[in-house]
Amino acid sequence: MTIKDRADLIHDEQRPGEISVSFNDKVDAGLYFIGRIHTPWSKRGECPRRGDLEGPICRIELFDAWRPGLLGLDRHTHLQILYWMDRARRDLIVQTPRTISEPYGAFSLRSPIRPNPIASSLVAIVAIQDDGVLVRGLDCLDGTPLLDIKPEACPGAVPQAD
Amino acid sequence: MTIKDRADLIHDEQRPGEISVSFNDKVDAGLYFIGRIHTPWSKRGECPRRGDLEGPICRIELFDAWRPGLLGLDRHTHLQILYWMDRARRDLIVQTPRTISEPYGAFSLRSPIRPNPIASSLVAIVAIQDDGVLVRGLDCLDGTPLLDIKPEACPGAVPQAD
Repeated sequence: MTIKDRADLIHDEQRPGEISVSFNDKVDAGLYFIGRIHTPWSKRGECPRRGDLEGPICRIELFDAWRPGLLGLDRHTHLQILYWMDRARRDLIVQTPRTISEPYGAFSLRSPIRPNPIASSLVAIVAIQDDGVLVRGLDCLDGTPLLDIKPEACPGAVPQAD
Repeated sequence: MTIKDRADLIHDEQRPGEISVSFNDKVDAGLYFIGRIHTPWSKRGECPRRGDLEGPICRIELFDAWRPGLLGLDRHTHLQILYWMDRARRDLIVQTPRTISEPYGAFSLRSPIRPNPIASSLVAIVAIQDDGVLVRGLDCLDGTPLLDIKPEACPGAVPQAD
């Protein structure tokens, strides 16, 4: 499936002021999907605009090979999760959000539409499992590909563990 | 240059307790390098362990096609920057940091060594330019590939703009 094939899923009309960029096929680096995120939301319209640390529990599932990477996670209370917004088009470098109605650059928005659609959320750990983590704070569709889990690193954002 | 070719640059010895994962060549998604980060650090040993919002000014340069994406950035004081740690090996899922001397999973460390070596830093904007942004808060090598710029989104991490 190409980028274009999936573009129909969100924001497929052209709105006033928008600018798109032509992509070539050659990418500069490759990503591995290391797991899958299970959430209560199966349609885009149901997803919250931003994750909430008191929102519903979501499950981050790691694929087999990567499970040893959880060793030591129990030292932490909060994590940063990176995931791949696989239904977002990537070409709209200036876009007009429906809620704002004037054009903004992709880098001044946290829209999923961006050249590299990597999303980042701060989450609170609910439980650590052998094959993943239960967390609160995500905002994405059920089945979203997982890219990375990091210990939380926003100074002052959350109570610090001792 | 393959992942293995670059592995000599950091952490090329095997330390006690470490576990590595075999990669296949098939990646799941592709990234575009959209710019380059200019910092004062040309060797890994010189880089700070973590970015400091009062650290030296670094320049984030955007390549031509992506510059319109800066439209509206002047509403913000802080940004989240994603960049590609292109000198890090990706296979060490359990690793023994020199400073800790016991094995930890990659997901319980913010080490650059991880299956998808995407780094994320919170930075303070110093100046917005036609072709990029001057910021404080980065920690990476000069020439590091840029993946994304997002408005800052760590609640409570920094003073909020009005």
